[in-house]
Amino acid sequence: MQESKKYAVELVLIKDASILKDGCFLRDVNITIEGSRVTGIGPGIKDMSGDDEVIDASGMLAIPGLINAHTHLAMTLFRGYADDMELMPWLEERIWPLEDNLNSEDIRWGTKLGCLEMIRSGTTCYNDMYYFMDETARATKEMGLRAFLSAVLFDMRPDLIDDVEPFIRRWKGDNLIVPAVGPHAVYTCSEETLSKAMDLAEKHGVMLHTHLSETRSEVESFAKSSGQSPVEFLDSLGFLSDRVVASHCTWLSPKDVSIIAERRVNVAHCSISNHKLASGIAPLDQLQRAGANICLGTDGASSNNSLNLFQEMKTTAIAQKCAHSRPDLFKAEEIWRMATENAYAAFRLDLGIRQGALADLALIDLRKPWFCPLTEENIISHLVYSAQGGVDTTIVDGKVLMRGGVIPGEEAILDRAQQQFQDLVAR
Amino acid sequence: MQESKKYAVELVLIKDASILKDGCFLRDVNITIEGSRVTGIGPGIKDMSGDDEVIDASGMLAIPGLINAHTHLAMTLFRGYADDMELMPWLEERIWPLEDNLNSEDIRWGTKLGCLEMIRSGTTCYNDMYYFMDETARATKEMGLRAFLSAVLFDMRPDLIDDVEPFIRRWKGDNLIVPAVGPHAVYTCSEETLSKAMDLAEKHGVMLHTHLSETRSEVESFAKSSGQSPVEFLDSLGFLSDRVVASHCTWLSPKDVSIIAERRVNVAHCSISNHKLASGIAPLDQLQRAGANICLGTDGASSNNSLNLFQEMKTTAIAQKCAHSRPDLFKAEEIWRMATENAYAAFRLDLGIRQGALADLALIDLRKPWFCPLTEENIISHLVYSAQGGVDTTIVDGKVLMRGGVIPGEEAILDRAQQQFQDLVAR
Repeated sequence: MQESKKYAVELVLIKDASILKDGCFLRDVNITIEGSRVTGIGPGIKDMSGDDEVIDASGMLAIPGLINAHTHLAMTLFRGYADDMELMPWLEERIWPLEDNLNSEDIRWGTKLGCLEMIRSGTTCYNDMYYFMDETARATKEMGLRAFLSAVLFDMRPDLIDDVEPFIRRWKGDNLIVPAVGPHAVYTCSEETLSKAMDLAEKHGVMLHTHLSETRSEVESFAKSSGQSPVEFLDSLGFLSDRVVASHCTWLSPKDVSIIAERRVNVAHCSISNHKLASGIAPLDQLQRAGANICLGTDGASSNNSLNLFQEMKTTAIAQKCAHSRPDLFKAEEIWRMATENAYAAFRLDLGIRQGALADLALIDLRKPWFCPLTEENIISHLVYSAQGGVDTTIVDGKVLMRGGVIPGEEAILDRAQQQFQDLVAR
Repeated sequence: MQESKKYAVELVLIKDASILKDGCFLRDVNITIEGSRVTGIGPGIKDMSGDDEVIDASGMLAIPGLINAHTHLAMTLFRGYADDMELMPWLEERIWPLEDNLNSEDIRWGTKLGCLEMIRSGTTCYNDMYYFMDETARATKEMGLRAFLSAVLFDMRPDLIDDVEPFIRRWKGDNLIVPAVGPHAVYTCSEETLSKAMDLAEKHGVMLHTHLSETRSEVESFAKSSGQSPVEFLDSLGFLSDRVVASHCTWLSPKDVSIIAERRVNVAHCSISNHKLASGIAPLDQLQRAGANICLGTDGASSNNSLNLFQEMKTTAIAQKCAHSRPDLFKAEEIWRMATENAYAAFRLDLGIRQGALADLALIDLRKPWFCPLTEENIISHLVYSAQGGVDTTIVDGKVLMRGGVIPGEEAILDRAQQQFQDLVAR
């Protein structure tokens, strides 16, 4: 509407927020965002123009965005379509028949639906593997989230690998979409496919995303046929490095654990999915002791059925405590790091509530019963064990995606996703 | 303000709600509430006066209230005060010193704080055991929730039993508060105390609420000293009947399971608390096969740290699936019944979205991403596995406690509870 703008880039001022800094709880902090970066933190307020966005964050905590380290976002369209089933009937009778009929419109609306839920729960970036990745990339950009996207590779679909390089070229350098390479798993990809994937990732300097040792039967049958564990096999190919995000890692030998830690592989632990599919409980204690980098993922909504990292944090903490009969293990602070700093390291994201960082953050309304009583000592405990909703504002790359709990266009996306699901099952 | 009223009792009309009836998902239903009861369900609309409350529930699902079958509500004041600790240091260094200093004001504001969270998550009734129960009763009535309240009985506090009968007499017949008798556990109460409690419950026709076989060490040390399991011991006293709500039941022998089912004891399973304190995973499959009545409880916020039955449903389902390596066990419908119908049977509550039932219900906003896509087949799955907040309206005994997510007076309660906690730790 206005003809002139005071600043070349959009400016967002978050006023009177609380933040966590070096273990301290600071109140009445102003955060200035210019373009995609945090440009100021402190008591001072920058001159504003009429076009700039001012957010009153009194009573709110600013947190850097949570990172969902493993998902299949378009599968949000399958939420609640198949539950409470054994793995093979679940796949053969329900999931695969749907996937056989998937088209790019399903991907588009499934992705947008998933983005809505992540925006609502303070997740600003996700690591995905699925089909029709250009469609996912476009939908994600329209929603404003950040994503690491890998087109899935299976030997049953040998054509898929041909598009890996073009996909990387199309998206490399984008401000929100980071292309990656996604060989599905050792039991669905040949040595040749895995090696090609590794070489492509190396050549283009991108990440590798794979499923690793998710179920006991998968690991046992792989060992029977190859004489090695999936981890040992990947290591023998030279596949494992800090470029890899390995999801699940539920069934690991002590040797596997050492290899994962030594090769600096990033583990995307998916506690809720592993429980719901009865896959098992990952040896996070061993991984942690070995120094592995552990992040958290939701997996797809078809096996969770949410995309909410607050749920994932709580479930991870309490499930690990119980599995080891040790309530003092997996303290809230460690769990919080899995959803934040560990993931920033894995994905080399320059995130944090500090000057110069990417402006990917959420404002959480502390005026909710589950944050009361609130002290400097219990704020992280509340985030991990008590928080249930209450995300007021989500900002990614300096753009406000949700404010006051309102995501513009949400209703239309819900309607369209509903329609698209009905079309898919009728197809 | 108005001088004349068309109806002697307050009338609430819920318009255009969706409901679940006999496994069907019905839309555009009107629900009429007069006084404390549902008086009409159907397409017709009763004549309204200007004073009556009309709630537009289009896009919302009306569910009968969820029942929290085991908690210590005033302990909500301790939320986040002590986490990630072994049981004995947790009790000795943190919880007991606080409890030594508790006064009735702490109870009052801890209770109100807990009520806020339950109202926000669609819980309309809770079963509690703690100190200063008259204060909890008054605070609960002021908040408008329904509660079964037992003053806790310990042998270390032999004075407590003297007030059990007066407490029952003071509250019996109240519209919201149902007094009960709460001997803490077999390891804290002598045979004499347990027998007295049982006799009092029998005499007054009220329920018995006790902790039962929560931890392995408690069961083992009881067996060592008595030669019996806690369940066998209680059964030998004649304590066990359908009058009993036994919380936890984590460590049961096959014989214990049979006794619990045969005596029709109501089990209050507390999955999150059992995980967070690393107590273990209750044998719900055995209890279910034996035909026991299983309900869900949150336990206190000091060991959860929430009071949200939606979290409890999801955690119960996925933890049991994983523990038995059977993703097809503990289907969403069974879990949903634990939080609703099983509890209605346990507490003999006449609840449901049907004519004549108590008007204890919640309206859930279905226009949220976690309810999309929505079909007649997946609605219960969404309630159990995906729902995260989204309770719009909570009604208890015909009174609207929250509407449009707003609970009148909430901010003042949060401020007061915060102050009260600070006073308590400084005391």
